[in-house]
Order: sequence, then structure tokens, then C-alpha cells
Amino acid sequence: MEITVMKFGGTSVKNNDRMIAAAEKIAAEHRRGRGVVAVVSAQGKFTDELIAKAQDINEKPELREMDALLSAGEQISCSLLAMAVAAQGVPSIAMSGWQAGFVTNGSFGSARIDHLEIDRVQKALDEGKAVIVAGFQGISDGDITTLGRGGSDTSAVALAAALNASTCRIYTDVDGVYTADPRIVKSAQKLEGISYDEMFEMASLGAGVMHNRSIKLAKKFGVPLEVRSSITDNPGTMIKERFPLENVKIRGAACDKDIAEISVVGISNIPGLASKLFIALTENDITPDMITQSLGSDNSWNISFTVHSNNADKALYIINKLRKELGAVRIDCLKDVAKVSIIGSGIMENPKIPAQMFTALTEANVNIRMISTSELKLSVVVDADEGHRALVAVHGAFFGE
Amino acid sequence: MEITVMKFGGTSVKNNDRMIAAAEKIAAEHRRGRGVVAVVSAQGKFTDELIAKAQDINEKPELREMDALLSAGEQISCSLLAMAVAAQGVPSIAMSGWQAGFVTNGSFGSARIDHLEIDRVQKALDEGKAVIVAGFQGISDGDITTLGRGGSDTSAVALAAALNASTCRIYTDVDGVYTADPRIVKSAQKLEGISYDEMFEMASLGAGVMHNRSIKLAKKFGVPLEVRSSITDNPGTMIKERFPLENVKIRGAACDKDIAEISVVGISNIPGLASKLFIALTENDITPDMITQSLGSDNSWNISFTVHSNNADKALYIINKLRKELGAVRIDCLKDVAKVSIIGSGIMENPKIPAQMFTALTEANVNIRMISTSELKLSVVVDADEGHRALVAVHGAFFGE
Repeated sequence: MEITVMKFGGTSVKNNDRMIAAAEKIAAEHRRGRGVVAVVSAQGKFTDELIAKAQDINEKPELREMDALLSAGEQISCSLLAMAVAAQGVPSIAMSGWQAGFVTNGSFGSARIDHLEIDRVQKALDEGKAVIVAGFQGISDGDITTLGRGGSDTSAVALAAALNASTCRIYTDVDGVYTADPRIVKSAQKLEGISYDEMFEMASLGAGVMHNRSIKLAKKFGVPLEVRSSITDNPGTMIKERFPLENVKIRGAACDKDIAEISVVGISNIPGLASKLFIALTENDITPDMITQSLGSDNSWNISFTVHSNNADKALYIINKLRKELGAVRIDCLKDVAKVSIIGSGIMENPKIPAQMFTALTEANVNIRMISTSELKLSVVVDADEGHRALVAVHGAFFGE
Repeated sequence: MEITVMKFGGTSVKNNDRMIAAAEKIAAEHRRGRGVVAVVSAQGKFTDELIAKAQDINEKPELREMDALLSAGEQISCSLLAMAVAAQGVPSIAMSGWQAGFVTNGSFGSARIDHLEIDRVQKALDEGKAVIVAGFQGISDGDITTLGRGGSDTSAVALAAALNASTCRIYTDVDGVYTADPRIVKSAQKLEGISYDEMFEMASLGAGVMHNRSIKLAKKFGVPLEVRSSITDNPGTMIKERFPLENVKIRGAACDKDIAEISVVGISNIPGLASKLFIALTENDITPDMITQSLGSDNSWNISFTVHSNNADKALYIINKLRKELGAVRIDCLKDVAKVSIIGSGIMENPKIPAQMFTALTEANVNIRMISTSELKLSVVVDADEGHRALVAVHGAFFGE
């Protein structure tokens, strides 16, 4: 039996009407004679509401209790979706994360999947049932855990890998992956296909449709992904290992506003000091990005880098503790910045591409603060209020206005 | 270590303020050096909201899915309450029904507790933690079950029995058990104590504070119960095996409007036909109450009884299927009736008591439709719109205006 895994995000099940629309898609796939496993997120803003309630009661709640609390959101949505599927005349069964066999490590709030005990899901599929699984959650030593950001996508991909599913469909508000966010760039175009690596960069750089963690997992197990609309029946965007690249070198452009730029000025010129700084950050789960280092006129080092804006205060706290040891004279943090990137496998093969991007930014009168490149992307940091203008200019240069 | 089990109903945790008030009571008990286990219901009307959502999606949802859905309500409230207790500086841990070891049979929606695997709760208590348990739920063969009406009270009593707790406190909106519902009878008085049997009758007859199922369990295991206020610190009402009865013979009066009166007229006078009727009802989980039987002028039987109003339509359906066999000429069902009762261990020992009750009803001009007595109660069925007037009159006769 060919198996389809279908993932529905929070907005795709936010009310009973959307729930029923999702159930119709599940029922239709089941009637095509396929084994269907649907993974579902909590409804709409329900998780945010629970977080707000908890914060109001206890500013620093135990992570274990927080996970038990939040997991209720998916338990509700998966039970309701199973009922909606049954109402379509298709036999169904709802499973929480632990019932579906998601065994994780004990990192509450950001647990990693250790393995899947897939027997119960497999048995239900063998009995001809559509299996509706609560995403975002698992179990560790008898305690409920949650997988953190992008958790439901990761649940779906892990199930697809464990069941050797022939496709894993991510249903979302948009009908595929675009060359840029269509809300910002009017001329953005839907992509038919994109490789895992390119999609990973798109996600990492703020394109938003899927979380990069789930894409990494999909690549590792070769799970064919499809991003498509939970509203229309339009074909979506396929994400696979390789695509015929045709003549297109650039897959898309993205703008990420959730970053902060940190500068540490006047670090003593002693070998090993800079690495001490980065070791301290990474040991605290902070990944510095876009690192630039320059030698000042007084023979001391200036180091700048970006971090996710959620981590900015934590990073400052860590660096301040090292300040004396580093000999730093100043630590700056800019939160009003944005990262604008172009993504595509061909970037470093063609030197005309960076030139084209910088020309576009100059013509749009955008000031570039930092630059970084990799095999798959070219990113610049700009002032936050110039982010969208920069994105439109860069996208226009490669895809037309 | 002496253990206190504390149960908080839905209104006692309906919002964050009430949640914090409950946490303060738990923390205070913990600081007295006692082991504390708190059992909590879903917040306010949350369960009703989930039921409404489910009904809207699927008129006849699978009971298994319904239980998974509803159990999320207590999972949320117990997580939040554990956070609120931790915010009081008392170490706490939240446990769902399955984590707390509630093993039930597989009757989804009205599961019975088979046994408790108490190790995990005991271990947390040994570690000095206040244990916050989701009431109303358990597990059967890997599936979440709910215990049905009065479920959280039953969870609390079962935990108290398994832990050999020295007291099980039921926190509620009122500050104890009253001689009658204080919302209807202004002169109602709070009882200091009442026996299990008397409380069982009070609960069965509509006094409402606790579910009779949990009282039965408390009696079976000799769990000392106390009903007290979740708002004030007033002493509540103790429920134990025996109380010095003093001179009080009557414990209270109650009015139950959730009943229906069914009459089957003209049943053939053949031995065994009446029992056939009652066997059919009880086999379908319907308990007939206040049965009266009279021989008609044509030598056929008229049988009347009451059932819970939720079961009236089901009862009619069952009786109609038997109609031919019974030879019944008419089946009547009155839904606008109420049962008014007095409760107390002394009723049948003192013939003045029934006389006093009937005099009060006559003086209040209330028409009596049916009468039934037992060791512990005397009940009459009256028209629904006379129910409250009858309750006030009867209560006044025994407790004063």
C-alpha cells in the first residue's frame, strides 16, 4: 500500500469549516486507495493563548509542565480532525504523540526525536483507517515532550520516513514555495520544484513556509515533500534531491527581520580570544551567523555577527561576562536590522550574480551593513526599514518587476 | 507522612485568579509538612465548549475520540495549576490520568477504575513535591478514557484510598453540605457532619455538591471526606462512617428536577411481565426509581416509575418495543416533574416524620403524584413548577423558616 503523509498547520484547522475542508482532503486521498496519515498542529492561536495563560500564572514555568500544557492543543485538534474524517464516512483513529510512538530525548521545549515505535500507526493503516496524529509532541521516559519550532513539520517528515511514504504533503496557507514572499513582492512566482538544499536555505533565510529542521530530516531520509494549499486544489511545489536546473540559477529571495547584529569592539589581539567568544555562544545554543572580523587601527579586533533576535539578550549577557577577558571596549547590539538573501545552487558558479544583486541594491539606494556568501546563498544585512524595499529590488533584478 | 488529597472543581480553577487561590491552599497545606495530592477538573465551561465543537463536526463521534478530546481539558488545568503551585515556591509536578496510574476498563465516556498504579505519585510525594493530577481520566490498553459524570470526585477519592490519605477535601463553590440548596431555601443551614449513606442519598436526590459514585467509593475504602469552600477558609462539612446523631433525625432536604415520570397503563395480568419491563430497562443502563404498581378495574396493571430525564427517550423507545408483549394500552411520559426528598438516618424509626412532611406539603397546597421511602429518605414526586415551593415548605417544617 502506497502511503501519503499529510500535514495540516494551525491555520488549516483553525475553525470547524477549515477542519472539515482538511477532512475532505484526507477522505479523498483515502478513497484513492492510499494509506493516509495526517499530522496536525494546534488550532489557530491556541498554543499562543496557552503560553499567555501560563506566563500570567508563572513567569518561569517548569519546561516539563509547559510541554504537558502545550501538547493539549494538538490532542484537541487531532481528536476533532479524526471526528471530521469519520463524518466523511472514512474510518479514522486519533493518536497523541506518545500513542503514535514518537520517542524523544528529554529536552523539554525543544526535544529531538530519538526513534519512532511505528507498530500502532502501521496496525491502524493495515486495518484501513486514516490515522490522525498530534504533531509537535512525543514522550521521554513517561513525560510528554514537545519538539519546539517547526515541530509538526518534523513530526510529519519523521512519520513519512518511518512508514516509507511515497509523499509527504505540507498543507499551508499559500499554494507552494515562491521566489519571494508574495505578500511583500507582488511579482513573486510559484516554483514547480526546488532541491532540499535550496529549500533549506530558503527556510533558514526567512522564507517561512517550512522549518529548516524538517527539511534537513527529509533530505536525510529522502522523503519527497510537496508544499501545497489547504484551500485550493492547485498543484504545489515539489521538494526533492535534484531538479533539472534549466537555466534558472536563482530559486528565490527572502527577507528575515528576526535577527540582531552584535558588534564587539576592541578585542585584544591575542590568539584564541575570538574562538573563546564563539565557543561560549554555541555552548549556550546560540548560533552566530554572518561573522565579520576586522583589525582596528589600534591593532585590536572588531568582531560583528548576527543572531536570531530571540537570542540577542542572552548573547549580550554571555559576552558581557567575557568582556574583561576579551579586553573589549564596547559591545553594540542593533535590533533594527534585516537580512536579505538570494538562494540558488548556481550562485558561486556565476560571478555576475553577486554583481547583479549589489547593483540592484545600489540603484534602490539601500545601505549594506554586512555581506556573507555560501554555496547556496548570498546574504546582506540592511536596516530593518529598508528590508522590504531591498527584497523587492533584488527579486526584480532576477525575476523581473 | 500524612497525606491530604485536595480536589478542585471546574469553577474553582475557572480563571487565573481562582487558579492562584487554589495554588495558595495547596502550598499552605504543603508547608504544614503534609504530602499533598491535588486533583483538578477542566477549567470552567471548557469541557462543554469541546463537546459543542465536536457535535458541530460530527453528530455521533466515536467515544474513543471524544475521550481523547475531553481529557485535554484536565491536562491543561493540571499543568497550569502545577505552575501556579511552583510560583508559590513549592516544588510541584503535573500528571495526566495515565501518568498518575489510573487504569480503567475500556468503557469510553463512562470508564470504571480498575486499579491504580500509584508508584509514580508516591515517588513524587517522597521527593517532597505537591502532585497535581488531572481528574476524570485514565487509560485502558493505551487509549485515554474518561470516567463520566462525577469523574474528578471519583479520581480524588480513589487516590486518597490508594495513598491511605488521612483526608480527602472536595473544594467547591459552597462552603459545605447544607440542609437544602441555599440558592432556593434561604434558611438552609450548613451541616458539620454527615454519614456516607446520608450523603449518598443527598447526592442521589439532587443536592449536587458531590457525585454519589464518589461517595460510594469513599465509604467502601473508609476515606474521610470534607466538603469545603475554595474561596473562604471556613470549616466545611465532614463526611464519615458514623456521626453522633444528637437529636437531629433529618440531615437535609433536596429537590431534583432532572427526572421524568413514565407510566405504562394496562399491562396484561400475567406473572413475569412487569419484571420483563424492568430487566429490559436495567440491561440498557437505565435505573427506574420510585416504582409504583396498581391493579386497574379491568384486572390489568398500571406501572409508574421515574428515570433520569436524560434517559427518558431511551426508556420510551425500549418500552415501545415491548408494548405488544406487555399488552400495554398506553405509555405516558411526563417531563415536567420534580422529586422532593428529605434525607436522614432516622426517618423510618420515627413515624412522625412522614406525617410532618405530608402536612407541610398539604399546607403549601402542593399536589403529590408519587411517594417512595427507604431507610434513609422519603421522596415525593410533584409538578416541576411546584418543586421549589415544596422544598421550601418541607425544609421549613424540619429546620424552621
